[in-house]
Amino acid sequence: MVDLLNGFSSCQYLSEGKKLIEDKILSLLPDENAYPESIHRAMRYSLLAGGKRLRPILVIAATEAVGGDHEAVLPFAVAAEMIHTYTLIHDDLPALDNDDLRRGKPTNHKVFGEAIAILAGDALLTEAFILMSRSKGMESIPAEYILNASHEMATALGSKGMIGGQVVDLESEGKSVDAATLEYIHTYKTGCLIRACIRCGGMLGQASSQQLSALSLFGSHIGHAFQIIDDILDITGDEKQLGKDIGSDLSNDKATYPALYGLEESRRKAEELVKESIASLEEFDDRANPLREIARFFVQRTF
Amino acid sequence: MVDLLNGFSSCQYLSEGKKLIEDKILSLLPDENAYPESIHRAMRYSLLAGGKRLRPILVIAATEAVGGDHEAVLPFAVAAEMIHTYTLIHDDLPALDNDDLRRGKPTNHKVFGEAIAILAGDALLTEAFILMSRSKGMESIPAEYILNASHEMATALGSKGMIGGQVVDLESEGKSVDAATLEYIHTYKTGCLIRACIRCGGMLGQASSQQLSALSLFGSHIGHAFQIIDDILDITGDEKQLGKDIGSDLSNDKATYPALYGLEESRRKAEELVKESIASLEEFDDRANPLREIARFFVQRTF
Repeated sequence: MVDLLNGFSSCQYLSEGKKLIEDKILSLLPDENAYPESIHRAMRYSLLAGGKRLRPILVIAATEAVGGDHEAVLPFAVAAEMIHTYTLIHDDLPALDNDDLRRGKPTNHKVFGEAIAILAGDALLTEAFILMSRSKGMESIPAEYILNASHEMATALGSKGMIGGQVVDLESEGKSVDAATLEYIHTYKTGCLIRACIRCGGMLGQASSQQLSALSLFGSHIGHAFQIIDDILDITGDEKQLGKDIGSDLSNDKATYPALYGLEESRRKAEELVKESIASLEEFDDRANPLREIARFFVQRTF
Repeated sequence: MVDLLNGFSSCQYLSEGKKLIEDKILSLLPDENAYPESIHRAMRYSLLAGGKRLRPILVIAATEAVGGDHEAVLPFAVAAEMIHTYTLIHDDLPALDNDDLRRGKPTNHKVFGEAIAILAGDALLTEAFILMSRSKGMESIPAEYILNASHEMATALGSKGMIGGQVVDLESEGKSVDAATLEYIHTYKTGCLIRACIRCGGMLGQASSQQLSALSLFGSHIGHAFQIIDDILDITGDEKQLGKDIGSDLSNDKATYPALYGLEESRRKAEELVKESIASLEEFDDRANPLREIARFFVQRTF
C-alpha cells in the first residue's frame, strides 16, 4: 500500500485498506459450503456484513509506520477483524446486550439461533489464533516476533483486558456509574483491542522499543477517543448510516461519556485525545501519515 | 516427573500428573480477587471443579515420550485444560446442551448466570492462547516450535475441528444418526483436542517427523477410544462418581456409540482402538510407557 501514502486522503487510505482487508478475508475464511455448513455460513454472515475494517487497517498502518511490510501482516490483520466480529456476536446475544440489529442486518443469533451464534463467535476467535500463529505468508517475519505479537493480542483480549471491560460494562447497566468505572470500561472494552492492533502491527514490523512505546501511547489515546466518538454517535448518529439501533446505549442504561459529561465536553475530550495521539508520533517520519490521518478522520465524524 | 516413569502404575502417573497440573493451574490462573471479580470467580469455579486433567497429562506424557522436558511444557499443558473447561462451560449453556450439573456441581451458568458463563468460556479460551504464546518459562523451546504447536492447537479447535464436531452433534439431536455422522462427531468433538494435546506435546519436545506421525496415530486411536468409553460410562457409570447427569445423552437423544452398536460391540471397539494406539508407539522406548499405561487404564474403566 505504498502508493496510498503519497497524497491520498485518510478516507482513501481507509477505503483502499478496507478493500485490501475484505479481499484477504475472502481468501482466508472457510468456504460457506465447508462442512458443517451452518457454522461457516454464520461466521461469514457476520464477518462479511461490512464495517469500516478499522482494526485490521490499524495493524497495517502501524506496520508501515515502522517501515515493515504490510503484505506480510495481512493474515494477522484479518485476525483482528475476526476478533472484533466475535466480540460483536457474543455482545449481541440475548444474555448480554440482546440486540436485534447490527450493521443494518439482523444479528447473528436472530438468523442462526443462539447455539450457532455462540459457536460462531468461538470459531472466529479460534480462527483468529489460527491466523496469528501461522507462518505461511509471514515467512519474512521471525517466529519470535509473531509469537510475541500473538501473546500481546491474547493478553489484550483476556479477563484482565477486553473481557474485563465487557464484564464491568454489563454489571454497570441500570446503575449510576462514576467517572473511574466509565474510564475502566472505555479503556478495556474498546481501548485494549485497538491499542493491541497498533502495538502488534508495530511488533510485526520489528519496531524499536522507543517506537513501540510511542505506538502504545498513540494506541491508548486513539482507543479512548474512538470509544467516546462511538458513544457520541450512538446519540447523534444516523441509524441507517450506522446500521445499528440508535439510542440502544440509552435504552440499555449503558454508561457512556455523553451521559456523564454531556455532548460538548465529550467532543472536546475526543478532540484533545486525537491531538495527543498525533503528538505521540512526533518522532515518526511520513510513513506514519496513515495513522495520523486515520486519527484526524475519526474525530471529524462527530461534528 | 522422571521418577514416575520407574515402576509407577498408570493410576499413579495420572494422580501425580493431576497434582502437578493443579498446582500449575493455581500459579497461572488469575486470582479470584482480581478485578473484575465475577469473571475470575467464574473461571476458577469451573477450572478448579476437579476432573482427571487428562488432556494436560497427555501433553506432558507426549513430551516425555520424545525425550523433552515436561517442566517447560507445563504452561502449554495448563492451556489444554483451560480449553477443555471452556468447551464444557459453553456446551452446558441453555442454548446448547442445557445441563445443570457438571462434575457434581451446578454448571457455570447456574451459578454465575448466562452472560458471565459465556464470557468465562471466552476468557478461558483466551487465557489458553496467552499461555500457548508465552515464552516465559518456556525459554528452552525455540519460538518456532511454540508457534507451530499453538497453530496446531488452534486448528484442532476451529470450525473444521472441534467446533465442527459440536455443531454436527447439536444438529443431530433427536435425529436418527448414521455411522458416518457418529464417526464425524467422535473424531471432531472429542478426538481433535486429545490428538492435538498429544501432537503438541510431541512438537514442543522437538519430536522427529517420524515420531510425530506415530504420536498422531496414537492420538487418533486413543481420542476415538475415549469418546466411546465416555458414551459407555454415560449409560453404565455411577452418577456420583462421574459427577454429571447419567443418561443425559439418552435424554438429549444424542448420537452415541452404544446407541448405534450396543454396549458389547462398543467395548470391543474401544479395546481394539487402545491396542492399535499402543501398537503405533512400537518404535518408542520406555519413555513412552506413561502414554501406553494411560491408554490401558482408560479402557479398563468400562468393565
